[in-house]
Amino acid sequence: MEALVLERQGELSLRDMPEIDRAEETLGPRDVRIRLHTVGICGSDVHYYTHGRIGPFVVNAPMILGHEASGTVIECGAEVTTLAPGDRVCMEPGIPDPNSRASRMGMYNIDPAVRFWATPPVHGILRPTCTHPEAFTFRLPDNVSFAEAAMVEPLAVGIHAATKARVKPGDNAVVMGAGPIGLVTALSALAAGCARVWVSDLAQPKLEIAASLSAAITPVSPGDLAAQVLAATDGWGAELVFEATGSPHAAAGVFQPLAPGGCVVMIGGQPDPIAYDAGAAMVREARVENIFRYAHAFPRCLNMIASGAIDVKPLITRTFGFEDSLRAFQIAASAPPADVKMQIELPQ
Amino acid sequence: MEALVLERQGELSLRDMPEIDRAEETLGPRDVRIRLHTVGICGSDVHYYTHGRIGPFVVNAPMILGHEASGTVIECGAEVTTLAPGDRVCMEPGIPDPNSRASRMGMYNIDPAVRFWATPPVHGILRPTCTHPEAFTFRLPDNVSFAEAAMVEPLAVGIHAATKARVKPGDNAVVMGAGPIGLVTALSALAAGCARVWVSDLAQPKLEIAASLSAAITPVSPGDLAAQVLAATDGWGAELVFEATGSPHAAAGVFQPLAPGGCVVMIGGQPDPIAYDAGAAMVREARVENIFRYAHAFPRCLNMIASGAIDVKPLITRTFGFEDSLRAFQIAASAPPADVKMQIELPQ
Amino acid sequence: MEALVLERQGELSLRDMPEIDRAEETLGPRDVRIRLHTVGICGSDVHYYTHGRIGPFVVNAPMILGHEASGTVIECGAEVTTLAPGDRVCMEPGIPDPNSRASRMGMYNIDPAVRFWATPPVHGILRPTCTHPEAFTFRLPDNVSFAEAAMVEPLAVGIHAATKARVKPGDNAVVMGAGPIGLVTALSALAAGCARVWVSDLAQPKLEIAASLSAAITPVSPGDLAAQVLAATDGWGAELVFEATGSPHAAAGVFQPLAPGGCVVMIGGQPDPIAYDAGAAMVREARVENIFRYAHAFPRCLNMIASGAIDVKPLITRTFGFEDSLRAFQIAASAPPADVKMQIELPQ
Amino acid sequence: MEALVLERQGELSLRDMPEIDRAEETLGPRDVRIRLHTVGICGSDVHYYTHGRIGPFVVNAPMILGHEASGTVIECGAEVTTLAPGDRVCMEPGIPDPNSRASRMGMYNIDPAVRFWATPPVHGILRPTCTHPEAFTFRLPDNVSFAEAAMVEPLAVGIHAATKARVKPGDNAVVMGAGPIGLVTALSALAAGCARVWVSDLAQPKLEIAASLSAAITPVSPGDLAAQVLAATDGWGAELVFEATGSPHAAAGVFQPLAPGGCVVMIGGQPDPIAYDAGAAMVREARVENIFRYAHAFPRCLNMIASGAIDVKPLITRTFGFEDSLRAFQIAASAPPADVKMQIELPQ
Repeated sequence: MEALVLERQGELSLRDMPEIDRAEETLGPRDVRIRLHTVGICGSDVHYYTHGRIGPFVVNAPMILGHEASGTVIECGAEVTTLAPGDRVCMEPGIPDPNSRASRMGMYNIDPAVRFWATPPVHGILRPTCTHPEAFTFRLPDNVSFAEAAMVEPLAVGIHAATKARVKPGDNAVVMGAGPIGLVTALSALAAGCARVWVSDLAQPKLEIAASLSAAITPVSPGDLAAQVLAATDGWGAELVFEATGSPHAAAGVFQPLAPGGCVVMIGGQPDPIAYDAGAAMVREARVENIFRYAHAFPRCLNMIASGAIDVKPLITRTFGFEDSLRAFQIAASAPPADVKMQIELPQ
Repeated sequence: MEALVLERQGELSLRDMPEIDRAEETLGPRDVRIRLHTVGICGSDVHYYTHGRIGPFVVNAPMILGHEASGTVIECGAEVTTLAPGDRVCMEPGIPDPNSRASRMGMYNIDPAVRFWATPPVHGILRPTCTHPEAFTFRLPDNVSFAEAAMVEPLAVGIHAATKARVKPGDNAVVMGAGPIGLVTALSALAAGCARVWVSDLAQPKLEIAASLSAAITPVSPGDLAAQVLAATDGWGAELVFEATGSPHAAAGVFQPLAPGGCVVMIGGQPDPIAYDAGAAMVREARVENIFRYAHAFPRCLNMIASGAIDVKPLITRTFGFEDSLRAFQIAASAPPADVKMQIELPQ
Repeated sequence: MEALVLERQGELSLRDMPEIDRAEETLGPRDVRIRLHTVGICGSDVHYYTHGRIGPFVVNAPMILGHEASGTVIECGAEVTTLAPGDRVCMEPGIPDPNSRASRMGMYNIDPAVRFWATPPVHGILRPTCTHPEAFTFRLPDNVSFAEAAMVEPLAVGIHAATKARVKPGDNAVVMGAGPIGLVTALSALAAGCARVWVSDLAQPKLEIAASLSAAITPVSPGDLAAQVLAATDGWGAELVFEATGSPHAAAGVFQPLAPGGCVVMIGGQPDPIAYDAGAAMVREARVENIFRYAHAFPRCLNMIASGAIDVKPLITRTFGFEDSLRAFQIAASAPPADVKMQIELPQ
Repeated sequence: MEALVLERQGELSLRDMPEIDRAEETLGPRDVRIRLHTVGICGSDVHYYTHGRIGPFVVNAPMILGHEASGTVIECGAEVTTLAPGDRVCMEPGIPDPNSRASRMGMYNIDPAVRFWATPPVHGILRPTCTHPEAFTFRLPDNVSFAEAAMVEPLAVGIHAATKARVKPGDNAVVMGAGPIGLVTALSALAAGCARVWVSDLAQPKLEIAASLSAAITPVSPGDLAAQVLAATDGWGAELVFEATGSPHAAAGVFQPLAPGGCVVMIGGQPDPIAYDAGAAMVREARVENIFRYAHAFPRCLNMIASGAIDVKPLITRTFGFEDSLRAFQIAASAPPADVKMQIELPQ
């Protein structure tokens, strides 16, 4: 079976990968076998392609890319009870040790033993089929398409951020950053009860996309952010600030638009220490939540997409056939500003 | 100035009330004087009219009715800084002692010293003007009408309930009761992040109104509630159950549709002890929140109405002129099933 | 190997149980084999002995009793990494499915799939050895004895209750009931930050035991409870009320001594619905937490015993040899008021 | 009446201050007049003396020092209901506007309108009498001395930190810094349910004082902190880290000893931005609470001192008569390492 293999930094190929086929031949009693349908291209996939590494994770051997996926169950292990062949599903890409201390406490996402698709040395799922634990495979509501379902993985980051923020209905929020994660965070914040979300970004085209998503989203340039939020709130500030740029410069200003007693959620990864304005945090008694991926978010995302509370379709800006995967990654690597999410459809 | 006075149980009149005019003559330094514009008729107003009392609160002397109000600031005390004459506002009807222990802790709604409009012996505001503390008077966003603003008071109950519930985005919820409070609770739960809300009521017309408010609301008869919720959630249940009937029979079943680790919010007043299924609560480790009116909810409500997250207009089913107040109360006392909220407009 | 077998209601014997020996012969890769040292007698063990059932759990076949246990690891499965032979340990008696929805969320105690020692049809551990998952086996600090370690199981109920209550330092608390669970709850509440705990019980000898545990515990008869707490707190009440009697009469009064904004924790099991004073709960905006056993509590208990923050030794009022097990249960069944916890020591 | 007046940086005098006498002559209806008994010397008092300013607060005119105080009520305003002449009391030194938005939400400590004793231009209370609002004056339990009561103010910082941390019973904690605030934080953490507290400081004498306070406190040098905590917790880390040094170097390392899902509380003031290890915070999903003084803590502190849960007496290392105030400040300014808290007793 052909897979999209990152042979090494800068080199992709569509080819057979017999060892993964053999590894997947056996189906554990609580696993399901899935035919992949749609796979989104994540910034991390592109980064491995262009740089060959992300922090400590280095591509030292050929690795299949892809971790934002939906598909159809084609076989179930002997002890599987909640899924059946034919079920349309999406999958959580990180598999923890369910008996680890962090997992038992419900924080499986920060279990160091997590094996995460397309993170070296774990293969991704840009391939025809995969096996996966029933516990991390979620049946799709009838009105959720495969394309929407492949958006659940990035949306889960936003939903996790909004959950950790403990939004109260009617809160005002700021989202710093209008990339894909910033956008799903803005949608999640609104769906979680925020009345209004200011989205800031240096790139005007990204702000335009943000503004097009909801009348409750106000685009603003970073330089005007704090002043505009304070002016609109009688000087009080926004109860919530989501940092989704990963930029040290943006992160240094998270407390400026924040209301007394407010919460900052740090989403964007930062390779180096950032400047933390402890005095500004103190006089507001700010709470800061630092999040890592997500936990328990997939069913929530599916509920929100199914109910119409969140519409992810406007974020899917291009779709490619599997045979065009290499071209898709080349386009993604050039980061066209008008694109949010590109997806690849596998042959069925 | 004429006011709508409940002379005694069953007897209303529109008449001058010189003593209230005199009492309101002086304006405290942190008070504002307001010309009333729109006043909603609450079930409690009607109950005082028809029964002359609510629990320990007895109408022993003529009392002006009305506590759901919007209007226009016409004069400001010397130390008022956040409001100015001409500001369109709505008002929180309960005034606590700001130095009480409960108030200092942020729970001013359960301060026993609260003076609440149209709760004996405190007069309500179905009269041309009133004075009110700046701290409990809230300026309206430009796109919020007087009629919508007079809905903030009942909506605040729903928003407070949803806030106390600590909704997580994507939760499923049940609202027991499709009266005005049940409906604002359903709207609040959705706006606060619930993906889906089942609303139960014995009265089919009320269920139809509920269903008309949102595609995410599913009407259901009380007898089918638990089974339907469990069936729709793979046997898991709803994360949140809001009891808004005040019926002991309904309250006895709150844990049946509840998910493990879920939360029940008791909104409806109950004159007598109710049956509490401690075993069902225990095996779910249910959390039960009991709420009393609301606190800190008015600005949140205004944010949500202004942003479009909550639309209260469909709940306003009839509007009367002040001169028709007596007729309005007679109609309200007959409780037509197709009516949700009646409002009275004061002459400007 | 001899075990203490409840043959049927009212009939105990010390005898071989070959089927359990065979079942335990194989050691799973993440299991450990433990030589039991000390086992406490729980009220539930006694109840199965005297009544043959607890609610829906019926003793239909001979069952080994005992679930409060400490011992020594004597063998480790191939994948065990955190324990080694010779380690002194105590064990959590309920084993959930780690992949269940409740377990993944960190609420493994309310996973319906939990298998719990000495709950029909699962055997307990009043026998020489057992096998148990590494994940639910906890190494003892050097200064914690086997006898103290066998108290961790009941203490865990109190610690779980205090954790769910979210005690703030300096809170005042009430514990209704001075049985073993009431006493560990009182100790847990104090260790969790309560300044003062009133303990109520109808039995004067139990109150005397409670009072002997700490100068911060005030014994009080149920009839005087609310008045005394209100008098001592300037009419404010206790921030926390723990219901540990299981008596419907006591449970009906939980809100009387409760402060505004306070929390009631329902610990005691109640076979039938109880009377819930919804009005009293409402005017206080009470939060009610219903708990079922415990989760994540064993390491916390060990920390607290090791540090000296909680001293469980005064609760261990009698110790029997394994050969005297039948006599121990006969004494326990007669419920001498001066006894709190009886323990049985296995031969080493 | 003589007062201890900071005339300007470096110059103190004991002298009459007629304008403050006049200002205090009138007693508001909800104020009480208090004869001061004991006043602790805070690091901020000393800092104003030695530097003439703290951040934006500059001593531009003579100012009375002192804000950690206990005394006796000698007169009550007409509307005072909870206090009477002769009551022994301690006082919260910051008076907010009770009608401000922050105050109404229960966060009166971060109300910008707070007037705080001995913070320019507000006078402190190293003088014979003062007037103060009833709402911020707290009656002492009989077994709490004036000296202990004057420790409530610094202790309140620790109790507020422990409250914000939401300690769970059995948590392990780290307190960085063994100055007076570090020590009250360590005592508060233990009283709030921590099983064990590591206290780190560069100064060995301070560590020795810390270790002398409780067997559950482990002193450790900053360089060994993370390694030692991880070793003692099987690599898991401490659930709570309190930063009480105000040192940027220490603050940069707060996440190193922190457990997954743990909480850092930032107590120490930082004049400049600090280095924030966002990556370390992220992989732990750390929560960071930033605190400013305290709110609602005084009654909690009194409860804890009265019950014996916290003993502040060992922290009071020297007591001076009012006539020796100048010498007391000279000694305090020299910061003897063996001293924790110096107090001044006013003539009665």
